[in-house]
Amino acid sequence: MAVQKLKIACAGLGRMGKRHALHFLNRTPRAELVAASTPDDVEMQWAKTHLEPFGVRLYKDFDEMLKQEGLEAVVIASATIVHAEQAIKGIEANLHVLCEKPLSVTVEGSQSVVDAAKKKPHLKVMCGFSRRFDDSYRDAFNKMDTGLIGRPSIFRSQTCDKLDASGFFVAYAEFSGGIFVDCSIHDIDLALWFFGQDSHVKSVVASGITAVQPELAKHKDVDNGVGIVEFYGGQIAYLFCSRMMAAGQDDATEIIGTEGKLTVNAQPQSNLVNIYEPTGIRREIPAHYYGRFEQAFVNEANEFTSCCLDDLKLPMKLSGAVQAVKIGCALQESLNSGKKIYFDEVGRRSEKAQL
Amino acid sequence: MAVQKLKIACAGLGRMGKRHALHFLNRTPRAELVAASTPDDVEMQWAKTHLEPFGVRLYKDFDEMLKQEGLEAVVIASATIVHAEQAIKGIEANLHVLCEKPLSVTVEGSQSVVDAAKKKPHLKVMCGFSRRFDDSYRDAFNKMDTGLIGRPSIFRSQTCDKLDASGFFVAYAEFSGGIFVDCSIHDIDLALWFFGQDSHVKSVVASGITAVQPELAKHKDVDNGVGIVEFYGGQIAYLFCSRMMAAGQDDATEIIGTEGKLTVNAQPQSNLVNIYEPTGIRREIPAHYYGRFEQAFVNEANEFTSCCLDDLKLPMKLSGAVQAVKIGCALQESLNSGKKIYFDEVGRRSEKAQL
Amino acid sequence: MAVQKLKIACAGLGRMGKRHALHFLNRTPRAELVAASTPDDVEMQWAKTHLEPFGVRLYKDFDEMLKQEGLEAVVIASATIVHAEQAIKGIEANLHVLCEKPLSVTVEGSQSVVDAAKKKPHLKVMCGFSRRFDDSYRDAFNKMDTGLIGRPSIFRSQTCDKLDASGFFVAYAEFSGGIFVDCSIHDIDLALWFFGQDSHVKSVVASGITAVQPELAKHKDVDNGVGIVEFYGGQIAYLFCSRMMAAGQDDATEIIGTEGKLTVNAQPQSNLVNIYEPTGIRREIPAHYYGRFEQAFVNEANEFTSCCLDDLKLPMKLSGAVQAVKIGCALQESLNSGKKIYFDEVGRRSEKAQL
Amino acid sequence: MAVQKLKIACAGLGRMGKRHALHFLNRTPRAELVAASTPDDVEMQWAKTHLEPFGVRLYKDFDEMLKQEGLEAVVIASATIVHAEQAIKGIEANLHVLCEKPLSVTVEGSQSVVDAAKKKPHLKVMCGFSRRFDDSYRDAFNKMDTGLIGRPSIFRSQTCDKLDASGFFVAYAEFSGGIFVDCSIHDIDLALWFFGQDSHVKSVVASGITAVQPELAKHKDVDNGVGIVEFYGGQIAYLFCSRMMAAGQDDATEIIGTEGKLTVNAQPQSNLVNIYEPTGIRREIPAHYYGRFEQAFVNEANEFTSCCLDDLKLPMKLSGAVQAVKIGCALQESLNSGKKIYFDEVGRRSEKAQL
Repeated sequence: MAVQKLKIACAGLGRMGKRHALHFLNRTPRAELVAASTPDDVEMQWAKTHLEPFGVRLYKDFDEMLKQEGLEAVVIASATIVHAEQAIKGIEANLHVLCEKPLSVTVEGSQSVVDAAKKKPHLKVMCGFSRRFDDSYRDAFNKMDTGLIGRPSIFRSQTCDKLDASGFFVAYAEFSGGIFVDCSIHDIDLALWFFGQDSHVKSVVASGITAVQPELAKHKDVDNGVGIVEFYGGQIAYLFCSRMMAAGQDDATEIIGTEGKLTVNAQPQSNLVNIYEPTGIRREIPAHYYGRFEQAFVNEANEFTSCCLDDLKLPMKLSGAVQAVKIGCALQESLNSGKKIYFDEVGRRSEKAQL
Repeated sequence: MAVQKLKIACAGLGRMGKRHALHFLNRTPRAELVAASTPDDVEMQWAKTHLEPFGVRLYKDFDEMLKQEGLEAVVIASATIVHAEQAIKGIEANLHVLCEKPLSVTVEGSQSVVDAAKKKPHLKVMCGFSRRFDDSYRDAFNKMDTGLIGRPSIFRSQTCDKLDASGFFVAYAEFSGGIFVDCSIHDIDLALWFFGQDSHVKSVVASGITAVQPELAKHKDVDNGVGIVEFYGGQIAYLFCSRMMAAGQDDATEIIGTEGKLTVNAQPQSNLVNIYEPTGIRREIPAHYYGRFEQAFVNEANEFTSCCLDDLKLPMKLSGAVQAVKIGCALQESLNSGKKIYFDEVGRRSEKAQL
Repeated sequence: MAVQKLKIACAGLGRMGKRHALHFLNRTPRAELVAASTPDDVEMQWAKTHLEPFGVRLYKDFDEMLKQEGLEAVVIASATIVHAEQAIKGIEANLHVLCEKPLSVTVEGSQSVVDAAKKKPHLKVMCGFSRRFDDSYRDAFNKMDTGLIGRPSIFRSQTCDKLDASGFFVAYAEFSGGIFVDCSIHDIDLALWFFGQDSHVKSVVASGITAVQPELAKHKDVDNGVGIVEFYGGQIAYLFCSRMMAAGQDDATEIIGTEGKLTVNAQPQSNLVNIYEPTGIRREIPAHYYGRFEQAFVNEANEFTSCCLDDLKLPMKLSGAVQAVKIGCALQESLNSGKKIYFDEVGRRSEKAQL
Repeated sequence: MAVQKLKIACAGLGRMGKRHALHFLNRTPRAELVAASTPDDVEMQWAKTHLEPFGVRLYKDFDEMLKQEGLEAVVIASATIVHAEQAIKGIEANLHVLCEKPLSVTVEGSQSVVDAAKKKPHLKVMCGFSRRFDDSYRDAFNKMDTGLIGRPSIFRSQTCDKLDASGFFVAYAEFSGGIFVDCSIHDIDLALWFFGQDSHVKSVVASGITAVQPELAKHKDVDNGVGIVEFYGGQIAYLFCSRMMAAGQDDATEIIGTEGKLTVNAQPQSNLVNIYEPTGIRREIPAHYYGRFEQAFVNEANEFTSCCLDDLKLPMKLSGAVQAVKIGCALQESLNSGKKIYFDEVGRRSEKAQL
């Protein structure tokens, strides 16, 4: 019996790292989680209980882990600040790489990963935009792709987190790149998916407020932002991001075409239960993004594995991740300058409006 | 200028009587409310403020009112116990009659109104099954009627009131005829509408419980009942009635055909507002049936008026109201006896199952 | 018997004029429609059938109509281009005025009505923003007003018409003031209502496309537009307007507060019917705004009437209508210039971003 | 490294057998599918491709498979007619048993499995009522269990399959035990779960029609059935089962308590996509029960595995499966006799109504 499994390592065992590790351990039949690394003692302790007994070798040091015999791939779920560096090291170690979004909070950092990947075209290098693996988004994309709504023209999307009164997001904002890079990056990636990966941005403009966490200002960030992204070709994406939702995770998308419209999660829900009580009819919604996208992450792990094992084309181009960061950073800049930002047709900044 | 208006009187000024009076006064352009009667002092006081200043003549005595010069029609919204008697008097006084449901809590009482009406074929005599005038039910009926769902085969319908802890329903049950005659009568009438007015009942069976108001037992009534009605021709209606809804009025109907299904109000709502709050997403629902059916009552007033003025055919046969009471009474009997009740093809009670 | 009714005239009998006339004729018990004017022969013909027989005197000339003995009020539903002029004439003739939105497509035109009204403080002069009279919007406002969602901070709203392939909107765009003045004016008015009538605009920016009607370009208009409006005080409204909806009228609003969110019509529907068929579960939605807002227009007629008869305060300030036009015009300008527009704290245009 | 996995075999590789096999192979980390059996050549061919390469040993003969060295458990997904026999053999071979529902189409057959299990109390023997493992049903149960809706009193539930014009269900009806045993068994099991596993049935009555497949009559079956089940203790379940849904699988449940109501899947959906098109707004629904309950089956496999490995209490009593078959068979009998069936308080048939 010789069923080949992809030997994969997981870098980083924070909130999302733990999940990736478990997905590859338990929910990706064609993969075998063989290693995991974390410099954090608490995370290491967790790994000793939840990973080591199942044959996963643990490392304090990422570089050491890369040397493990037989390793074929690595999923990078460490702090955003080291995404690009670790991704490049993985590539250089001849490993397939699944890197959590964003590749980097800068365009240059993101591009450096693309450049490294170009030198090793036999490797699969993917930025984990999980929504691309969500059944509902895929169904919407396929329906659009078959012409059901005509030509997609307007794209509305929002990433809205539940209010977290702990102040977590204030500290987090120091390194996140800002709400448009951290949250809206998903919506931007979706816009690029639905409008076409090679869409060229024409302008961006954004506004924001700090309604509940005024301290965000010190990191030049906000808790609520809206933005408009114009594309050459005559499409528009308009975006909303928030860290202030009372009810829970509220991520919704609309794709408006010349002959119809598709919505994804316009009515959030945790499950299929409705509660009738004296105050009316109520349904609960997920508290966090993982409650909404768990299955998408599992799909991602499985498809990435198949692409590596069977040498299949990845479902998205790595260069798109740079484009997404570029738009996210420009939105964040516009938010802070109060000015609209223009790009010419080859993607360079321009001083004047392109009509 | 001579636009003819229907001169109408309103008998009874209780909860529903007040509404009928105001509908004819203010919201039925082609009708003129010219009189109202009530034996009740409190109601009379209300009428002096709300009706008399607008030219409505008030009577303590129903019979006196019928003699008013020029009167053309009467809406009967008095206690159920006098519906039939007053309807017959109205007919005999040569008036068009719109009688609140049910015509009577007995089949014989209901039939007596039909018999009286038969002698005056020029008069419009209608039992006010308000749901027949509801836009959603009409849309569903029309869709079914054009064949959208094939042959209607199974009918599920419920009339469910908000829990009223005051004990009102216990007192009310003494004269209401029971929950199947008082509440389910609407669902039965809808079944007869959707399955065809001339459907013949084959059997009925019902069960019920007193979950919150055990004192209902003294009036042989329940606060929750379910029933099955079989028709010759191979259709089945199954019904639920309740006085125990926490959230509010919850009246829903499904019509299941051989090629599709229609639902009416499967997701109750007061309006188009949704509330996102820490416990989830909530919408409110109407507290009472009038919150759900106000516009249907207004439509009823206007269409009844048009039928009278323009000598049009009424939207439903009066004899159907007898059939509905017959089925409602049989369900109530089955509830109390614990036995299934059979009818032969000409509508007589039968001892044995009709297969 | 002496119940006083408001004697009102209707100017203009186009699509909306006919409706206003009939609302005051039939569905406003305290008003009496006594006159109507239209220069259009076809409309006049309609009026001879539908209004004249009920005692409404007809005029070809608006000015003539204003002289009618006993007239107390006028509803102005003529072409937008004459709204301001007719409103001012009505005021000068000592009449209460209900003017369809917008007062004018220019700020100056709108302000001239406000100036005229100021000279006659005993008159009720109102711009007919119908959504202020919609039960769902009112319920949402009241819930917000009682603090249910904390401090309102982000406002999303859209006015989206069904695609009309006839080219009607192209011709219409010549005089409409553009999609932001014609459609988004409703959303802007709602934003001013929910954020407070005295909110001061800080910046606007807009983008748009002509996805289905490229000829709109000749009137400097688009068929899809998005815009962001920043207010001093730290609130943001973001707007979408479209003339390209496949399914029908799709007007939705979200009010996002620091402690919750309210949505209005996030799931459009014509009625309470759902259709289960081989392609899934379907519901229909209104084809036009009147299907969505009919009852709001009727409420508007009744409340305006009450305010006139009982000398009550109108539910909104007339000056708000100027503010709405100012924002709408600025959005339309931004759309065409591609530039963000700034205002200082006293409402004057400014060259630089206000941070 | 010594992580213990449950060595399990799968009996039967038909529609559901294939799924169980794959769930245990790929989606149950703590189990190891080591064997599978089927007498069918086509199924065996499938197994050679999908199971054998992954180390699963294949058998034509169930009895042979039971002898496999080291086997600890068996999932029985063969034809209903051999469920009981194979379950008993599995028990006698000292294996944990997960048996697809129903244990048998007769009460006696079902009881024989319970009797066999009683002799081996160390074994885990479970009838696979998959809905008990569905997240939404569990959430509803937990909410009820904490008192959110007061005392559960009325239970409405339906199992409704998509119309299958192929005639499959006619042939299937010969051995299925009838629609109440095959479909409603799920709803009955849910009623027993929500009302309490030890609820005693007081009466059943059922009616049905053959609206689209008249040939079902030859197997004494129908394509649409409704039934009422009364319990001692004052609860009522009312049920609907159908094989005629146009849109797809339509399984819904309502639990009505004295202080609230819970619904599960009252608005079916395939995913979170809504489609806006000229005919309205549409969503798709699952074509089959597996589209609705896939994750529940996976949960079932994982929890059964944990119960076996960790010697935990199963989430439901095996005797409940007998009670469910008893009620299902009585409903099917009532359907055919046209008579209501009574039970006394100790579960024996009774001739007269229990009031």
